[in-house]
Amino acid sequence: MATVDTSIPPKTTGAAAKLAAAHEAEHPLKLYGGWFCPFVQRSWIVLHEKKIPHQYVEINPYKKAADFLALNPRGLVPTLAVPVGDQGKTQKPLYESSVICEYLDEAYSDESKYGPDLLPKDPYERARCRLWIDHISNKIIAGFYRFIQHTPEKDYSIGEARTNFLTQIKTLAKEMDDSGPWFLGETFGLVDIMLAPWAMRLFLIDHYKPGGVGVPAEGQGGEDEKLWARWRKWFDAIVARQSVKETWSDDALYIQAYKRYAEDTTNSEVGQATRKGQKLP
Amino acid sequence: MATVDTSIPPKTTGAAAKLAAAHEAEHPLKLYGGWFCPFVQRSWIVLHEKKIPHQYVEINPYKKAADFLALNPRGLVPTLAVPVGDQGKTQKPLYESSVICEYLDEAYSDESKYGPDLLPKDPYERARCRLWIDHISNKIIAGFYRFIQHTPEKDYSIGEARTNFLTQIKTLAKEMDDSGPWFLGETFGLVDIMLAPWAMRLFLIDHYKPGGVGVPAEGQGGEDEKLWARWRKWFDAIVARQSVKETWSDDALYIQAYKRYAEDTTNSEVGQATRKGQKLP
Repeated sequence: MATVDTSIPPKTTGAAAKLAAAHEAEHPLKLYGGWFCPFVQRSWIVLHEKKIPHQYVEINPYKKAADFLALNPRGLVPTLAVPVGDQGKTQKPLYESSVICEYLDEAYSDESKYGPDLLPKDPYERARCRLWIDHISNKIIAGFYRFIQHTPEKDYSIGEARTNFLTQIKTLAKEMDDSGPWFLGETFGLVDIMLAPWAMRLFLIDHYKPGGVGVPAEGQGGEDEKLWARWRKWFDAIVARQSVKETWSDDALYIQAYKRYAEDTTNSEVGQATRKGQKLP
Repeated sequence: MATVDTSIPPKTTGAAAKLAAAHEAEHPLKLYGGWFCPFVQRSWIVLHEKKIPHQYVEINPYKKAADFLALNPRGLVPTLAVPVGDQGKTQKPLYESSVICEYLDEAYSDESKYGPDLLPKDPYERARCRLWIDHISNKIIAGFYRFIQHTPEKDYSIGEARTNFLTQIKTLAKEMDDSGPWFLGETFGLVDIMLAPWAMRLFLIDHYKPGGVGVPAEGQGGEDEKLWARWRKWFDAIVARQSVKETWSDDALYIQAYKRYAEDTTNSEVGQATRKGQKLP
């Protein structure tokens, strides 16, 4: 997300504003974020799930703070400032939301303080989670942008964008633990977190695209009803999850912020890659 | 690597043939590989670095074995068959070379048996390694294929392909431990392994492309001489590393296998993505 649309309001609102205010005090572990960015929300959810003491710094995309640019000259959000060495006085940067999330899970792994780890302990299950995180990042999320950025000028129809997106969702639903509600069953984890921000943004496709997302209503899933029932169970659990709700600003502002995605005029890196038919950066 | 060029000989040769023969006995942990595939070589190097008991199964790309396709219907190499449950009688598949490598490092982590872990223990250093593994996969390796698949018809010059590739190498060299020889200093690790197979394949660019790779000779690096000296130190250590040498077939056969890359007529997934100007799959 190198370039940011200037129509986007520069601050958290609603529940996220309260959470940001509760974490505005100076702290050596800092998350530099942008309220509308789903990659930021991933990292923010991990911080809140594990109750990790930190400072949240909202980056004004039109006027990036000097300390932020000194830490990460590329100016990307999310960036995590990590205290290292000499009693944590030195700060080093991490970026890439999946790297940040896995770092936080590993660095704050005392379960008596931070609750259960977000990746399972069994090495095969950890690897399986990483494969499905790949599927989320490379298939589902790419399909989300291809869908929301669809315009009549594209060389694919909105029906194709929808079918592709729903197929990738079903592929994931098939891999979910049968009883749920989470990917791994009763334990909320990193696979859930990696997709949660886009689950929260599905209503934008309903708002902007004719025919909407197209997930079948209860009992309407035909031969795939079992998979759709499993998806709806996961989805309902996600939108009710405290760490997801509390990192969410007002719905109306996401509608405003994603207008340029829906018109396919956004300058974000993700948006541009989608426009060129390329894999996401 | 879904589709494979039919001009490629179907078996390991040279050092790799000896190693494969020493690991042909039935074992529940199986690496299904292809001798010319650099993504396979990553996983193979990890198995050998850690001396993990396993079976190596060379997949004939023209006639994929039934047990392999039953395990991974997509038929991709590398695929790792992992024994799970009930005394390891059930086998489950892993794929994606980076997921396989990290799995092997985590599942075989008894240092008294398998030697030092390939990722550092410190969470920040682990995360930093993951960032540079990203750089290798998304920048250096993508640049390698853009370079070797260059033809006069492209909309970029070979000079641009070379400069881009060398710039990404320098960016990595800057992050390497000053004394080396490895990325992390004295400890060989996952960052080294993730790039080693392409380091071994650089001679193919020298063979096929006018002007070759273009890494400056000793003392010829100008203002970047320090970085190039660091790169050469790493490169020399890689080509001398036992696990790298022993997973390598005869040079002449790589020249044969990569001819279709050099002519940009390969049907491999990586080759096709490069041709379309897309991010690697």
